[in-house]
Amino acid sequence: MAKVKKQPRPKAVTPKGFRDYFGAEVIQRKAMLDQISEVYQLYGFEALESSAVETVEALGKFLPDVDRPNEGVFAWQEDDDADWLALRYDLTAPLARVYAQNRNDLPTPYRRYAMGPVWRNEKPGPGRFRQFYQCDADTVGASSVAADAEICAMLADTLEAVGIPRGDYIVRVNNRKVLNGVMEVAGVLDPSDPDKFVTERGVVLRAIDKLDRLGADGVRALLGAGREDDSGDFTKGAGLSDEQAEIVMGFMQAKRDSGAATVARLNELVTGSETGVSGVQELETIAELMAAQGYNSDRIEIDPSVVRGLGYYTGPVYEAELTFEIKDEKGRPRQFGSVAGGGRYDDLVKRFTGQEVPATGGSIGVDRLLAALQAKGRMTKETVGPVIVTVMDRDRMAHYQSIVGELRAAGIRAEVYLGNPKNFGNQLKYADKRNAPLAIIEGSDEAERGVVQVKDLVLGAEIAKTASLEEWKGQPAQSEVKRSELVAVIKKMLG
Amino acid sequence: MAKVKKQPRPKAVTPKGFRDYFGAEVIQRKAMLDQISEVYQLYGFEALESSAVETVEALGKFLPDVDRPNEGVFAWQEDDDADWLALRYDLTAPLARVYAQNRNDLPTPYRRYAMGPVWRNEKPGPGRFRQFYQCDADTVGASSVAADAEICAMLADTLEAVGIPRGDYIVRVNNRKVLNGVMEVAGVLDPSDPDKFVTERGVVLRAIDKLDRLGADGVRALLGAGREDDSGDFTKGAGLSDEQAEIVMGFMQAKRDSGAATVARLNELVTGSETGVSGVQELETIAELMAAQGYNSDRIEIDPSVVRGLGYYTGPVYEAELTFEIKDEKGRPRQFGSVAGGGRYDDLVKRFTGQEVPATGGSIGVDRLLAALQAKGRMTKETVGPVIVTVMDRDRMAHYQSIVGELRAAGIRAEVYLGNPKNFGNQLKYADKRNAPLAIIEGSDEAERGVVQVKDLVLGAEIAKTASLEEWKGQPAQSEVKRSELVAVIKKMLG
Repeated sequence: MAKVKKQPRPKAVTPKGFRDYFGAEVIQRKAMLDQISEVYQLYGFEALESSAVETVEALGKFLPDVDRPNEGVFAWQEDDDADWLALRYDLTAPLARVYAQNRNDLPTPYRRYAMGPVWRNEKPGPGRFRQFYQCDADTVGASSVAADAEICAMLADTLEAVGIPRGDYIVRVNNRKVLNGVMEVAGVLDPSDPDKFVTERGVVLRAIDKLDRLGADGVRALLGAGREDDSGDFTKGAGLSDEQAEIVMGFMQAKRDSGAATVARLNELVTGSETGVSGVQELETIAELMAAQGYNSDRIEIDPSVVRGLGYYTGPVYEAELTFEIKDEKGRPRQFGSVAGGGRYDDLVKRFTGQEVPATGGSIGVDRLLAALQAKGRMTKETVGPVIVTVMDRDRMAHYQSIVGELRAAGIRAEVYLGNPKNFGNQLKYADKRNAPLAIIEGSDEAERGVVQVKDLVLGAEIAKTASLEEWKGQPAQSEVKRSELVAVIKKMLG
Repeated sequence: MAKVKKQPRPKAVTPKGFRDYFGAEVIQRKAMLDQISEVYQLYGFEALESSAVETVEALGKFLPDVDRPNEGVFAWQEDDDADWLALRYDLTAPLARVYAQNRNDLPTPYRRYAMGPVWRNEKPGPGRFRQFYQCDADTVGASSVAADAEICAMLADTLEAVGIPRGDYIVRVNNRKVLNGVMEVAGVLDPSDPDKFVTERGVVLRAIDKLDRLGADGVRALLGAGREDDSGDFTKGAGLSDEQAEIVMGFMQAKRDSGAATVARLNELVTGSETGVSGVQELETIAELMAAQGYNSDRIEIDPSVVRGLGYYTGPVYEAELTFEIKDEKGRPRQFGSVAGGGRYDDLVKRFTGQEVPATGGSIGVDRLLAALQAKGRMTKETVGPVIVTVMDRDRMAHYQSIVGELRAAGIRAEVYLGNPKNFGNQLKYADKRNAPLAIIEGSDEAERGVVQVKDLVLGAEIAKTASLEEWKGQPAQSEVKRSELVAVIKKMLG
């Protein structure tokens, strides 16, 4: 009852970088997440829904954008004594916290999946929002690369389950240890002093991750002195010599026609590095495990150009890429690209517990995958609306309600028009806007004769917007049905 | 690669008042929300998922706890020029913003449902968290009480759909206009000066809403000078005279054996108030509409003690209550109480647009309803885990993987044990912790003979924790199965 004080009207807008999702968008995403979680469950993963809010301390600083370590999250402090709290920016950092917190109660290995929104306090752009869905599956507590292979197989199964046919995707696998071996050989990693060259290696990592976007020349510039982009901005490079850069470039381009040939080439490149050799062995083991289950080169391949941007990966890294072409905003064909990825991160839980806990997992870019399914025509933008019972006679509302009651009892989506019924045209416009397949009309004369009119709105869609009630009633898309047979007839009409 | 600087280990805890949800908790809530959304869709409601973050300006101050108008939300400001942002505290305020923002594109009436977390910056308590789920359905743009009746019917259908049998719930309906009529008669509402006595009416409203908890005497105290609670805290009352309080108490206790008798009593109480008379008429209309669809006094009743705490309701208010008894924490029987409620709020969209837009809707307390289903034994706390393929021989991992591959292809949830396989007991403990129904064992001798051992863990659960591998293998719950028949046998065993 408290009256709101007079003040300027609030603006009805979402905050910048946020958006709402309506009807079919929500339903389709949900259907896709349901399909994904079915696969995850089949693989024995358990659902986890962690709190959306974490302490800033627990979240840590693991955003890919390491150049802005103090930004990237939405954070607040209730009062000066309170912990800083923040919205989670991914589902991996919370998993590390959950596992550390509950490690005595959870099974080990702990396979869990999680799906839900994450928030990033980043500059929004076209198609880039500050709240978006992630869908992750991780195995914590398993050091065997069989766990990595399992996630890769599961990503492949998941893509097929949501409607990406085999041949339209590839899961590419690499290993950070191989990259580290190459860095050793190139002289930017000293196993006896791991902190040395850490900045340089960060630049190298991010440079390789940009191969798709910058091309080989761009990456080479970043490995050396640096690179000026089209806008004139200069990014400082890793400062590698030409010989050093050549070794790294050789790694990036080590992919050969067969997995065996790629492995052979990688073994050449890491000669002398224990870490590198062990990384190549892991890649071979993953390939063997996959092949034993029928995942061959049409679904999984070793690709040394995959490094993933995140700093925390320690072993196998993987990326699921869609290989079919779509048209970009300028109509040029391009490959759809990555929709999922992940890798092994053995140090995240250690932050909390002091003990190393091996972990590996992947994340699906839900919105990108939805966009891909739409591009493939696997998803229509619209869903079929309810059957609309129009209101010809306001006093008979209870009767109209009983019609929809019968329809719903038969499992048919149905509603009575609840706006002002005076203007019948508005009722038809409403039915149109709702994408209703059928409208039911029952005036007093129909009621007396024990019949109703059923209008097929799909057939009648074009004329419905302009026609008067009488014209509309005369359309061939309309038929008279006995009231007692209404439910059966409608069931049949809707197929 | 960037090394995290040495610093004290972060604490692995959820922020105060937040929690995580594991496995069955997530699955069961999801299953319930799926059942609810199915009913909502059947009624023609469309899904909406609005942004979790809103501007503080758009959210407004509509939390029930009007005594702390500046608290209750989690809010932050990025920098001094930026808008204050906040996490939504319910799903109604965002709906008003969404409708105002998209009113030219949305159908009118706009029936939408929404489900998702909301956040309240309130003092946490036992079972009271600062993030919880809501599940709402609202109709915006329909002034007819048929829209209110529809929500009431839908709440009843929803409860039955999730497993609350008819007879175990009641939807109680009242109307704020009737209360306002009573306030007029009692002299605490002057239709010609609606702002007068606004504070007193707020106190009256909240007093009535506490009838369940405080009893009639407590409410009467709050209507008068005030009330001292058990802890000695004094709550100031509305300051009504005994005569005035008597009129309000009469309203609250106006419920009679039949709807018609209650209506007759209410008509007596509001004699002389136009608003009150119109409110009683609306109640009658709702009862008629409901009865026409078969919703009778076993499911819906007029109950003047229902007022709902929120200040913004303007017409019908309703509440779905579970009527069966449960035991409270001290073992005393008590009724389960309210699990859903809502009402008509015609002014919320007006905040943005300046034009009155009628709206009505209800919200289901998801966690309370889940607790109710658990109390009724409709939900088990545990779900069945995956079939576990144990690892007897680390070198044959690819083979074990192919077994689970076959099982999954047949739709059976299955996984290979991915922890350290050395200690077989740990594998069994793991299977137990996962609530696995079956474990599969294939050592080298089994592999040679083309068989596997299948262990029924439900039968063998008790002994599994202590038995050695050899003892365990000898249990009657174990059987030898031809490798080629494994999938068929397991399918049969799992029923």
